[in-house]
Amino acid sequence: MKASQLGEFGLIERLGKIAGEAPEGEVWAGDDTAVLRAPGGTILFTSDLLIEGVHFDLELTGAVDLGYKSIAVNVSDVAAMGGTPRRALVSMGLKPDIEVEWLEQLYEGMRQCCDEFGLAIAGGDLSRSECLLISVALIGNPAGRRVVERTGARAGDVIAVTGTLGASAAGYRLLRAGIADRPDLVKAHLRPVPRVKEAEVLRTHFPTAMIDLSDGFAADLGHICEASAVGVVVEGAALPLVDLKGLGIDRGALQLGLGGGEDYELCFTIPGERFEAAALAVTEATGTVVTKVGEVVEAGRGKILLIEGDEEPLEAPGWDHLRVTP
Amino acid sequence: MKASQLGEFGLIERLGKIAGEAPEGEVWAGDDTAVLRAPGGTILFTSDLLIEGVHFDLELTGAVDLGYKSIAVNVSDVAAMGGTPRRALVSMGLKPDIEVEWLEQLYEGMRQCCDEFGLAIAGGDLSRSECLLISVALIGNPAGRRVVERTGARAGDVIAVTGTLGASAAGYRLLRAGIADRPDLVKAHLRPVPRVKEAEVLRTHFPTAMIDLSDGFAADLGHICEASAVGVVVEGAALPLVDLKGLGIDRGALQLGLGGGEDYELCFTIPGERFEAAALAVTEATGTVVTKVGEVVEAGRGKILLIEGDEEPLEAPGWDHLRVTP
Repeated sequence: MKASQLGEFGLIERLGKIAGEAPEGEVWAGDDTAVLRAPGGTILFTSDLLIEGVHFDLELTGAVDLGYKSIAVNVSDVAAMGGTPRRALVSMGLKPDIEVEWLEQLYEGMRQCCDEFGLAIAGGDLSRSECLLISVALIGNPAGRRVVERTGARAGDVIAVTGTLGASAAGYRLLRAGIADRPDLVKAHLRPVPRVKEAEVLRTHFPTAMIDLSDGFAADLGHICEASAVGVVVEGAALPLVDLKGLGIDRGALQLGLGGGEDYELCFTIPGERFEAAALAVTEATGTVVTKVGEVVEAGRGKILLIEGDEEPLEAPGWDHLRVTP
Repeated sequence: MKASQLGEFGLIERLGKIAGEAPEGEVWAGDDTAVLRAPGGTILFTSDLLIEGVHFDLELTGAVDLGYKSIAVNVSDVAAMGGTPRRALVSMGLKPDIEVEWLEQLYEGMRQCCDEFGLAIAGGDLSRSECLLISVALIGNPAGRRVVERTGARAGDVIAVTGTLGASAAGYRLLRAGIADRPDLVKAHLRPVPRVKEAEVLRTHFPTAMIDLSDGFAADLGHICEASAVGVVVEGAALPLVDLKGLGIDRGALQLGLGGGEDYELCFTIPGERFEAAALAVTEATGTVVTKVGEVVEAGRGKILLIEGDEEPLEAPGWDHLRVTP
């Protein structure tokens, strides 16, 4: 059945069933706004827009994975603040002839991500559109007393990342080339798992700054530099780069690791004396490897990449959604 | 200057300046999520998607008005719950060659609406897109102890509306026809004023149900019927319809009033003995007229429109964003 046959309100009802029922004291779909219960104090509030042809290609992704990812990228932002995701609103622009069953799968994927990380979809908005648009807004709470901002990095801190860098970008290139050898990389691109559990452990070790890697390691670490007014020295050889051997991918692992984007790993800074315990705790609790990749320095030294003894500027095209990048 | 020349991050900084500075204890743009202070208890959470070619036509609307309206339609939803709007996130999809100055005007309009109703833009997301998209997510708080849902209408209640019905739809038709005689109607379409102050007074008189008129009076009153499991009898002659005399508009005032949509007036139900005092209080405080238009009845009687003694079904095409309507 086409969305146009069911109509806006029929579709809202159908998708609302997949989202589940509001607990006592809350109102989800069906009124002017959602009504939510929330502890007082601090709210984390984020939104992300996913647009067909810009953020995803329906030839390459399935509905369930796309649904999962559209929630996951927002959850990742809340995790990077040391927070717990709570309620999402999903606004979508739809071509009227889109299949309702496909949309139900999309919602099923959203639901999977919600269930995995303890949040829920509390409503949203549907509209007609020329291409598929998914706009997710998410509120969460800090898990502890402190929010982990980007502003606290200090000269001498260790810089570290979770997981592997460049896996998503490599998976995207494999998908486009139709190479099926490495489902792990393809999955890293289509269905990134936000590092909520890792962030939950990390925050108890008081990182000084934290960000999730959506634009690419070099660009995102650059955001920490700006916000904290510091410089960084990154050891090229220490970066946990994706293994591309024999895959015939056009860009090297270092390039993908620095600029590929969409890894949704955590990058954080922490005083050296707390790093080992923090890394060990994360790996013990979650199985995720944490790698020390460099050191925070005074702002005057800039952003430096050490490669085989040479100092290069740490830069990569990253994702600037408005500039035309090669 | 084009947005593509300034880039995503340059543009975020430029627009962030128009949005203003976060108060102590809050973080707006510049981190993974916004960090907001909030009283505990209940949060109202809503989002609305505005898409070029679907919700607005850049040939007909200016940037400032469009900005104002994109915030206003969300504020209207919070008002209809008896709430106070607090913080918005603005996600936009932009053509890379859009003028930065135009976007600054758009933001200026958003800021005007925010200032008027005491809220603020706390961040958002920018992306490339084929057409202009504006997705606003808004959180608010109930102004009093109680949220005014759609579920409380009871047989015997009075049905009432604020302001005029059909003004926005009439203004849209005048704009399209290039008729400049009635700037009041054009303004009702381009720059609707959300009924925040009216709702604030109303809620102290305990309406049993309330909704803002975005889809059209017949459709929106229908939402109250469904949510409250009641029927309605509406007096056609009592409806505060827009005056179309001499304007050569293709549809009659009744049709526009029932189905035109985007009036952003309030429709509410209230026990008869409280209606007069409530209406008087709203008009005294705000100057906005409140009109009794009908009565809530048992569900079995359906949705009835009384026209010159005849009973007709109360219906109108309204806005179903996915169905193809004539």
